[in-house]
Amino acid sequence: MTITPPALSVFETLESEVRSYCRSWPAVFDRAQGSYLYDEDGHTYLDFFAGAGALNYGHNNPVLKRALIDYIERDGITHGLDMGTTAKRAFLETFQNVLLRPRDLPYKVMFPGPTGTNAVESALKLARKVKGRESIVSFTNAFHGMSLGSLAVTGNAFKRAGAGIPLVHGTPMPFDNYFDGTVQDFLWFERLLEDQGSGLNTPAAVIVETIQGEGGINVARPEWLRALADLCKRRDMLLIVDDIQMGCGRTGPFFSFEEAGITPDIVTLSKSIGGYGLPMSLCLFKPELDIWEPGEHNGTFRGNNPAFVTAAAALDAYWSDGQMEKQTLARGEQVEQALTAILDEHGGESIVSVRGRGLVWGMEFADKSRAGAVSKRAFELGLLVETSGPESEVVKLLPPLTVSPDELDEGLRILARAVRETA
Amino acid sequence: MTITPPALSVFETLESEVRSYCRSWPAVFDRAQGSYLYDEDGHTYLDFFAGAGALNYGHNNPVLKRALIDYIERDGITHGLDMGTTAKRAFLETFQNVLLRPRDLPYKVMFPGPTGTNAVESALKLARKVKGRESIVSFTNAFHGMSLGSLAVTGNAFKRAGAGIPLVHGTPMPFDNYFDGTVQDFLWFERLLEDQGSGLNTPAAVIVETIQGEGGINVARPEWLRALADLCKRRDMLLIVDDIQMGCGRTGPFFSFEEAGITPDIVTLSKSIGGYGLPMSLCLFKPELDIWEPGEHNGTFRGNNPAFVTAAAALDAYWSDGQMEKQTLARGEQVEQALTAILDEHGGESIVSVRGRGLVWGMEFADKSRAGAVSKRAFELGLLVETSGPESEVVKLLPPLTVSPDELDEGLRILARAVRETA
Amino acid sequence: MTITPPALSVFETLESEVRSYCRSWPAVFDRAQGSYLYDEDGHTYLDFFAGAGALNYGHNNPVLKRALIDYIERDGITHGLDMGTTAKRAFLETFQNVLLRPRDLPYKVMFPGPTGTNAVESALKLARKVKGRESIVSFTNAFHGMSLGSLAVTGNAFKRAGAGIPLVHGTPMPFDNYFDGTVQDFLWFERLLEDQGSGLNTPAAVIVETIQGEGGINVARPEWLRALADLCKRRDMLLIVDDIQMGCGRTGPFFSFEEAGITPDIVTLSKSIGGYGLPMSLCLFKPELDIWEPGEHNGTFRGNNPAFVTAAAALDAYWSDGQMEKQTLARGEQVEQALTAILDEHGGESIVSVRGRGLVWGMEFADKSRAGAVSKRAFELGLLVETSGPESEVVKLLPPLTVSPDELDEGLRILARAVRETA
Amino acid sequence: MTITPPALSVFETLESEVRSYCRSWPAVFDRAQGSYLYDEDGHTYLDFFAGAGALNYGHNNPVLKRALIDYIERDGITHGLDMGTTAKRAFLETFQNVLLRPRDLPYKVMFPGPTGTNAVESALKLARKVKGRESIVSFTNAFHGMSLGSLAVTGNAFKRAGAGIPLVHGTPMPFDNYFDGTVQDFLWFERLLEDQGSGLNTPAAVIVETIQGEGGINVARPEWLRALADLCKRRDMLLIVDDIQMGCGRTGPFFSFEEAGITPDIVTLSKSIGGYGLPMSLCLFKPELDIWEPGEHNGTFRGNNPAFVTAAAALDAYWSDGQMEKQTLARGEQVEQALTAILDEHGGESIVSVRGRGLVWGMEFADKSRAGAVSKRAFELGLLVETSGPESEVVKLLPPLTVSPDELDEGLRILARAVRETA
Repeated sequence: MTITPPALSVFETLESEVRSYCRSWPAVFDRAQGSYLYDEDGHTYLDFFAGAGALNYGHNNPVLKRALIDYIERDGITHGLDMGTTAKRAFLETFQNVLLRPRDLPYKVMFPGPTGTNAVESALKLARKVKGRESIVSFTNAFHGMSLGSLAVTGNAFKRAGAGIPLVHGTPMPFDNYFDGTVQDFLWFERLLEDQGSGLNTPAAVIVETIQGEGGINVARPEWLRALADLCKRRDMLLIVDDIQMGCGRTGPFFSFEEAGITPDIVTLSKSIGGYGLPMSLCLFKPELDIWEPGEHNGTFRGNNPAFVTAAAALDAYWSDGQMEKQTLARGEQVEQALTAILDEHGGESIVSVRGRGLVWGMEFADKSRAGAVSKRAFELGLLVETSGPESEVVKLLPPLTVSPDELDEGLRILARAVRETA
Repeated sequence: MTITPPALSVFETLESEVRSYCRSWPAVFDRAQGSYLYDEDGHTYLDFFAGAGALNYGHNNPVLKRALIDYIERDGITHGLDMGTTAKRAFLETFQNVLLRPRDLPYKVMFPGPTGTNAVESALKLARKVKGRESIVSFTNAFHGMSLGSLAVTGNAFKRAGAGIPLVHGTPMPFDNYFDGTVQDFLWFERLLEDQGSGLNTPAAVIVETIQGEGGINVARPEWLRALADLCKRRDMLLIVDDIQMGCGRTGPFFSFEEAGITPDIVTLSKSIGGYGLPMSLCLFKPELDIWEPGEHNGTFRGNNPAFVTAAAALDAYWSDGQMEKQTLARGEQVEQALTAILDEHGGESIVSVRGRGLVWGMEFADKSRAGAVSKRAFELGLLVETSGPESEVVKLLPPLTVSPDELDEGLRILARAVRETA
Repeated sequence: MTITPPALSVFETLESEVRSYCRSWPAVFDRAQGSYLYDEDGHTYLDFFAGAGALNYGHNNPVLKRALIDYIERDGITHGLDMGTTAKRAFLETFQNVLLRPRDLPYKVMFPGPTGTNAVESALKLARKVKGRESIVSFTNAFHGMSLGSLAVTGNAFKRAGAGIPLVHGTPMPFDNYFDGTVQDFLWFERLLEDQGSGLNTPAAVIVETIQGEGGINVARPEWLRALADLCKRRDMLLIVDDIQMGCGRTGPFFSFEEAGITPDIVTLSKSIGGYGLPMSLCLFKPELDIWEPGEHNGTFRGNNPAFVTAAAALDAYWSDGQMEKQTLARGEQVEQALTAILDEHGGESIVSVRGRGLVWGMEFADKSRAGAVSKRAFELGLLVETSGPESEVVKLLPPLTVSPDELDEGLRILARAVRETA
Repeated sequence: MTITPPALSVFETLESEVRSYCRSWPAVFDRAQGSYLYDEDGHTYLDFFAGAGALNYGHNNPVLKRALIDYIERDGITHGLDMGTTAKRAFLETFQNVLLRPRDLPYKVMFPGPTGTNAVESALKLARKVKGRESIVSFTNAFHGMSLGSLAVTGNAFKRAGAGIPLVHGTPMPFDNYFDGTVQDFLWFERLLEDQGSGLNTPAAVIVETIQGEGGINVARPEWLRALADLCKRRDMLLIVDDIQMGCGRTGPFFSFEEAGITPDIVTLSKSIGGYGLPMSLCLFKPELDIWEPGEHNGTFRGNNPAFVTAAAALDAYWSDGQMEKQTLARGEQVEQALTAILDEHGGESIVSVRGRGLVWGMEFADKSRAGAVSKRAFELGLLVETSGPESEVVKLLPPLTVSPDELDEGLRILARAVRETA
């Protein structure tokens, strides 16, 4: 495939220097369908990035598209703040019937604004209000968002520095396997909590991702998550699972924490919850935590009704039975085999590890800059894959959950070639 | 009109206690068109609330709807992070040609995430980074958002308390006319800045709304804004105008600060910028401030392409000439006359003042609880009007800019009746 | 008098650049008695500085000296933390009998560590604990100390910058007469408190000096202090009077707030409380505020028993009757007349104002650098006077309270000459 | 010995509830000499507490007492702020000749105010100014003082809670042997520093005690200190050794870090530096760090000249040769043998460990309340010993360095008896 340098002029002259993806992928995208994007010059790209996890059901999924257009055509409410609407009711009922009841999850549902960071901010506010404490424990290489509350519990030094103020009230603890299994889980955390002289401000809550996506596809073991949930309970801290990237079926089950068998006190959802890539987010919490006063947290776009429509349609279409979970786990095995083959081909000196679960996978390179080179070469070969990790040393695979085995195979072959050609 | 108690059960049982509007307006809305909403029981509501300013072009505006459906039908990119897309390019070009160039505004454009608070957070980050200082000056009764960065420069005590941590790095100054003209403008602020012993941490920036919407429809005079801009320049502070609610033509001109003839260093836009009520926001700043590193601020939904489509369509349809501004000012006169008539009817003991500009107006009641009663009665009579102000003592009128004179007249008559019937 | 450049070598080579007074007064002082210091080269200096207010009873006051040497000779406890000692008991009894009972002051007494900033830190801690709020209101040009808690409520920008972290939780309000009487007292403060949208974090306490010494000898009127006390009561804030420099008789009565007839909730004392210039400080508070847990605040040198001895001796010798207060007020009139004469001689273009009370006086110069020149020339002429104010524009007179009329006259004549010779 | 309940009335009625030692030791002390205190009822107490380390040379040491009385008698300067005085010069010269030169230590000397917490506050300010960062790393069970800057790097939860504001900008790391040797030294700390995604704000400095006194007599190994110094150097952090309690010969050498052979960037001294128990403290730092502006940190009692006199006399008398260090180490062996004997007598079920160095020792009890009981019984038997550790589970021995072998023996026998009688 030949890439003609695209006419990026207005992006370069008018858009801020903060823009980022358009630098890695110098194309002007026009259309998309399923697992593919198309740029204005006629090039086709297989998408193993899926809107950073916001497009689990693929681009412009026809089932959701139909529901969305119907809703718009009939002049359904578009913007509704937190007014009662038929679309919202339908979503809530579906959410309850398809997700909460079958899983025996007791959550109340809050619409905190349509972005992930809105959800995290509301979760942290609620936890602090409930416990009357300021401090939050997060984990190394966590990513929770870019507004100041969320950024304070995010690990990345570059992103933190952007705050322009010292980020306080958060303390990082080692994520699972941070010391390659040489240190007992929660040794440090537990000791700090039990020692009255440790200097740790008693936390209101712990916020955790079950798999750290931005942090480099770091996969927490179910037993680690269970031990964390237990620790939170014993030490009177709320457990917040940020399921923004790993929820909505990314790891197999709808909620990524299902495998561990835990019930977090608070859960945040965003990205793929709207189904179609439309902005939407939720904050879920146990009913006894619902001590919010009316309007104590709000946001203009917290009632993005078109997203409620596609969200409900997606739950109906994909989560009424266990098929989606099974399929994702099967696809995951396909990915794992292919990545293991690449690992075997190149050996441990080049590739530190491959890791993942369901349809989120990472391949970490010993030469940290290699991951970027692989991603760049893949783009030239028609595959979109992102890097992640603190030094962008991990190639991150996040295909749509609706990807077909053939598409998966195609993408994995391109990836293998890109690895080979950057050796 | 008779309102049957609607079936709110799932809202009451499943949705968090934080919900708010649905308590004032106990209906389940289903459809909307132009200036009207329709609930599922067949009731019609004239909307003088307009999505808290997010629906300046009315509900489901047919011009924008056409563009939106066409885009969805043809599988245009829905979710694009900050990748280059044809929809984004079209928006940027339109924004430049229709808004920036004719006004000689030099701004770079940043997509900080699709909500107002994302935009404010990015503006504050940038100001702090540029100036290397933490402190921000805001004004009494300011409202800038609910994530922690924005909340720290918001005045409302109830909303601030929700943070659960002490909100720091912000200092409030008196907004225009805070002392009814008895104190010279900026006397306190200027003195704090010039006095090396004042105890004020030198601010990186000042953030201001030209009219405080949530704060009670407090209208800053153009000369006050000019003096503020001058103070910022003399004292090396950046001036941020938060035009999220008052921009997009609400006060007449597209940017609310145009009347004052100032050019803020940073401008935030959201709410009606997307045109159709879809989540979108912008942060604009002078090119010399664009010192962002790529990806230093980001957000999953910062590339909400359907909103780019409706945003561009709205600019094309309504801002290619000066008609919209003229029309809004004319409609504003109509509102002012009607409100003045109500004021005259009830006298100063009941109604403290009516105030506004363009199509944003407030009527403050001496008995603070009266405003809520008026709003409630108006709802029963088929008119949606919100209250604002620190103690919800102001009835706030925010009709769509596309409201017709007859619709305006209808709503104002309902309002007059509601005032009369709550006497 | 001729000053030989002193041998400062070890100060210059070994002592930190942070040293300050030794730069203005390049002498090596050796002995002192009453109102005079003597350097090692035989020069004599009349002291109108009095250890920045720590030597109200003059240098090496013979009455206190006798008590001190007796105590040391008989091996009285020197260092006692907060153990019970006979010296501490004697001090407490004297403090109660001589100061508290006759004035009907209900205070409990805390020994928070021997420096002023220890006392302020303890006062702020207690206020925050009692009220359960973080925020403290201080005043423009306040000075309360250099440790982080005290520094956060101190006005001086240069000193604040030394913190190296953003100083938060404090908000400055205009001190009395900050706007030369053109703005109603507490207009801004009261409005911020009553407006639920003002953005002021509700304060736990207000901390105030009755006369700001470091801030430039700014004298609060008794009616302003009474209005402040009333405001604190009405708005449920504790009133802390920092009487470290202005207490111990400096303004006439023992406590500087006596003239206003108010009873602060918390009072800090240091500097001259020990009598002899030995480190000692107290924090006084109403009994109902004494909710400290044992050891919740402490400090190694909080039981500096030799200071207790000289403190008790000073109270006995000078405060058993009303003589000291009368004498100080009489001396103050002498100073005022002399300063007024200087003002009259030089006129308002040179000297902005003379102001003070009791034996604390300031003379502000229009040409701000003039104050330093006057101080320098006075030193050459054998008089020690300090400057104060945010830009060191005020010559500050702080003679010992034990100064004789002749000594006062001598010093004031030198001052007049220094002013004349720097014209 | 029979203890008559002393007349504590004025302490109980007038002194704040914050008083602490006087509750454990219900006596009214009157005189003291060498290793003994005497109460007003004629009881004698052997002092293994030594003013919490402020009386290393014993009570009212006759050599220092002579120098002190001579100085007072001849009207030497008592209170000098940071003016040049002959007493200060003599101290500085002695400090340089006796301590710095022989040890090849390059430090500049700052007088930050006379208490330990003043010294720590100045050290933290300087480190933040030099590095331009806010964050400080401290250690579990650290104690650095009670003003807000120092308290933020102190571990004890009870003391931290007294702040009344969230304490931020400090992060605790595990002190040496925190995990009983099962975790590699600095594993967590080093990893946080090298991981760009760890979430640790880059520290300006690390503050450490070589032996944690208040924290429970936790002894850092020389190799651990060396590794810490190396880590600081490699990672561009300043190393602050807080030698307030462990310096001045307590562990053997004058500076407690000498044994490790490191040269910290900044050192704080207080407690015994004044020799006689008079308030005094120092902050020492490498010359290249001396970027203070004149007066950027100050304090009224930073020039406590009588303390300079006794400080110089103590250095002259005890540190001109290596005798003191040898003697302390010998005495330490005597203590260790006696404590080991007690340990052997009672076994590991009762006594967790005995630990210490030089003349600071701790005995930790399995039953945490036992330590308090031992201390109480020892008091009844005429011995003053304090407890320490986060739950006061450690009996702490801190006899004067001038203690005689017989006195040591006497005290250790009382201790053994107290342990026995509380079994």
